[in-house]
Amino acid sequence: MITEADVPAADITPADITAARRRIEGRIRRTPLFEAAPELVFKLEYLQHTGSFKARGALNNVLAAQERGDLGPAGVIAASGGNAGLAVAWAAAQIGVPAEIHVPANAPAVKVKRLQALGATVVQTGTEYSHALTASAERAAQTGAFVCHAYDQPEMVAGAGTIALELVEDTTVDTVLVAVGGGGLVGGIAAALADTPVRVVGVEPVAAPSLRTALGRGGPVDVEVGGYAADSLGARRAGRIAYAVAERTGMVSALVEDAAIREARQRLWDEWRIVAEPGAAAAYAGLTAYRPEPGERVAVIVCGANTDPSDLV
Amino acid sequence: MITEADVPAADITPADITAARRRIEGRIRRTPLFEAAPELVFKLEYLQHTGSFKARGALNNVLAAQERGDLGPAGVIAASGGNAGLAVAWAAAQIGVPAEIHVPANAPAVKVKRLQALGATVVQTGTEYSHALTASAERAAQTGAFVCHAYDQPEMVAGAGTIALELVEDTTVDTVLVAVGGGGLVGGIAAALADTPVRVVGVEPVAAPSLRTALGRGGPVDVEVGGYAADSLGARRAGRIAYAVAERTGMVSALVEDAAIREARQRLWDEWRIVAEPGAAAAYAGLTAYRPEPGERVAVIVCGANTDPSDLV
Repeated sequence: MITEADVPAADITPADITAARRRIEGRIRRTPLFEAAPELVFKLEYLQHTGSFKARGALNNVLAAQERGDLGPAGVIAASGGNAGLAVAWAAAQIGVPAEIHVPANAPAVKVKRLQALGATVVQTGTEYSHALTASAERAAQTGAFVCHAYDQPEMVAGAGTIALELVEDTTVDTVLVAVGGGGLVGGIAAALADTPVRVVGVEPVAAPSLRTALGRGGPVDVEVGGYAADSLGARRAGRIAYAVAERTGMVSALVEDAAIREARQRLWDEWRIVAEPGAAAAYAGLTAYRPEPGERVAVIVCGANTDPSDLV
Repeated sequence: MITEADVPAADITPADITAARRRIEGRIRRTPLFEAAPELVFKLEYLQHTGSFKARGALNNVLAAQERGDLGPAGVIAASGGNAGLAVAWAAAQIGVPAEIHVPANAPAVKVKRLQALGATVVQTGTEYSHALTASAERAAQTGAFVCHAYDQPEMVAGAGTIALELVEDTTVDTVLVAVGGGGLVGGIAAALADTPVRVVGVEPVAAPSLRTALGRGGPVDVEVGGYAADSLGARRAGRIAYAVAERTGMVSALVEDAAIREARQRLWDEWRIVAEPGAAAAYAGLTAYRPEPGERVAVIVCGANTDPSDLV
C-alpha cells in the first residue's frame, strides 16, 4: 500500500497560480478590498460564490481536469459536508458535469439540502467524516469520477492563491493574515507572494494546529483537532503542498485561542456588520498573537461566511 | 406659528456635497464597490460606521455646526431610536461634544444600550416617536443644543451625497437604485449626480410612499407608513430637500411590495452573505419594479445592516 509518506512532496509554482487565474477569471467574483481601519484592510472573500474562497480552487480543479481530459461521464466526486463540498458541487454545475458529494449520515439536513440545491448527488455513509471519505474513494474507483480533495491538490491551492494576486494589484500591504485548516488557502497565498516582500502569517486555532505541528515535526502528521472553528479549520493533517510552501517561504505561524476567535467574530459584526464563520474570524483573531509594528499595513483575508449569524445580535 | 409650508423649499448644491466630503473624508469609511453579478454593482455602505450611511450626514452636520460656531456646551440633540440617532451619537463622540438622543419610552432596550455605548444621554418620553420629537424640541429650546434632523437638513443630505462621488470615481454605471425613507439618501445622491447622465431611481415600499406621494401632490405631505421596512423607511413625510432634488432632477420613482423586500433581503444573504436591513434590501428589491435594459449597468446602494440576522438561516 502506498501511503502519503511515499509520495514526493508536492508544491506549486507562480505559473500554476497565473494559470488558475486565467481559468477562473470572469467565473469567480473579484472580491472587494475594504479599508476597515488605519493600516487594516479586509479582503471580503466571504462574498465569493458558495460563501467561501473554496469556489476558486474547486473551479480551477474541475476546469484543469476538463482540460486534461480527466472528466468522464461520472463527473467529479468529493467527501465534504462543508465549504469544499459546496464549492465542488458549484464548480461542477458551472461546467455542467455531475457531482457526487459524500457526507456522514448524521450531516445536518441544511448542509445536505444546500448541496442538493446546487445539483449534487449527496451520499450519506457512516457516522464520521472518515467513513464518507472511504466510501467516496471506493465509489471513485468504480465510477471513474474525478476526485476533488478539499485542500491538498495543486489546483485547489493555486486557485486559492489567486486571492493574493488580486490583493497586491489592489493595494500595498506589509503583512497578510490567513486562517489555516489544512492549509490550502495559506499555501496558495504564500506561494503567490513568495517573490514579494509581503509577510504571510498562517493563523491556526490552538485547538487545531495542523500546520504548526507539521513545521515542528518536519512534515504533516495527524493532530487532534476540535474547538470553536473546527467546522472549517478541522483538518487533521496539514496538506503536503501547504507544508512545502510554508517551509520554503518561512511562513510565520500564529496560534489563537478559541475565545479570541469568538471575540473576533463578534467584533467583525459589531464594528463592520460582517458575518464571518469562525474559521474566517480566526484570521482576524491572529492580531492577538501576531503584533504588527507601528505603521505596518495588514491585510486580513475574511474567507468565508457559512455560519448561522443568529448569535451575533 | 411657522409651519413647514411657510419655509422656503430647501435644496443643496454640488458645492455642498464637495464641502461635505472635505469635512468627513478620513473620518468616515470609504466603502467598497462589489461587482456582484454582470451589470450589477453593490456599494457596500452597510460597512460604514454605526452600520448605516447616516454616519456621513451626521458627521457632516456636526462638523459644519462646529465650523459655524453653533455648538455650545449642550452639544447636539436628536429624536431617533434608529440609524439617525446612532449616527448623531457617534458623530458627537467623534468631535467630543455631548449628544442627547430622545426616544419613546417603549424603545427596545437594545437600541437604548447601543446609543448609551456611544456615549449619548438617552431620554425616553411618551409612547410614540412624535412625543420624543416634541420633547427634544422643548429641550433644545432650553439647552441651546444643536438640533440634528434625521434627514431633512442640508448637511445630512450633502453628507449622504458623498456616496455618489465615491461611486462614480470607482466605476461607471448607467443607473443607481436608492432606498427612500425621508429621502435624505436619495436626495444627496441625485443632487451629486444631477450633472451626469446617471439615472437615479428612488425605491419606496408601497407601504411607505412618502416621496412618490410628494411628487404627485406637488410637495411633501404626511402619508400613512408601515410595513416590513418601516423601521428605517418609516418617515411619514418626505424631506423638503429630497422633494426639491427629486423634482428638479426628474428622479425615477419605483414602488416595491413588502414581499419583494423580504425576498431581496434573503437573496442578499443567500447569494452574497450580505446582511441588509429591510430598508437597504428595498433598494435591491427595486429591480422588481425598475427593469434595466439589456446591457444597462446598475448600482445598488446597500445602505445599512442594523438588523437582527437570525431569520436569514
